[in-house]
Amino acid sequence: MTDIPSTVARYLDLVANASSGAEIAALYAPDATLEDPVGTPARKGTEEIAAFYEVLTSRQRSTELLALRVAGDEAAFSFRVVSGTGAERSVIEPIDVMTFSEDGLITSMRAFWSRQDVRRGA
Amino acid sequence: MTDIPSTVARYLDLVANASSGAEIAALYAPDATLEDPVGTPARKGTEEIAAFYEVLTSRQRSTELLALRVAGDEAAFSFRVVSGTGAERSVIEPIDVMTFSEDGLITSMRAFWSRQDVRRGA
Repeated sequence: MTDIPSTVARYLDLVANASSGAEIAALYAPDATLEDPVGTPARKGTEEIAAFYEVLTSRQRSTELLALRVAGDEAAFSFRVVSGTGAERSVIEPIDVMTFSEDGLITSMRAFWSRQDVRRGA
Repeated sequence: MTDIPSTVARYLDLVANASSGAEIAALYAPDATLEDPVGTPARKGTEEIAAFYEVLTSRQRSTELLALRVAGDEAAFSFRVVSGTGAERSVIEPIDVMTFSEDGLITSMRAFWSRQDVRRGA
């Protein structure tokens, strides 16, 4: 049995603090898929997932879990991401859905948000 | 283009106020699926979906939308359901994921929550 809440907490910690995309991609299974936002083409596999997160790591950012619901071997959670500072600051509160393998790796992630959910400025 | 926020608002209104399960099932496409909670067998089609909601309609209850994120033709939203009164009162805040047809009917619903998310009593 995987400890899904711990994996989600670790994920949000790394989204805030990882120094490379590969660090975050290591939470994913090798053939995992990532769809962020939902409705865009899915990225698949460690390399594409690491590249997706790499963009984040050059910015100052923080994360906060707002609500987590675990059901079966899946989870849905809302969280806040604040990135950048001053006029470049943006705040977004997506709802992510993740599935997990038996050994606790993320097998898929789908992020629900749209451009109109992004708040900009200090 | 369907107006997903309106459909979600209508859904939560009916979950609170419908007098029959069929009223809520009418928001769904005829061959829609419903998985509540995620990890349990899906109900499929108008009859099974109406039966699922019928149970609700004998109880006093209210709903409140907490957060809604629309992406593509899907939505994820967290909401509060209060049902019953006094010692029978229960509060739960699921996160639901819905997909929609082009004509605005719900084609699937998956509800993320578990027994430990239910708060009981006044």
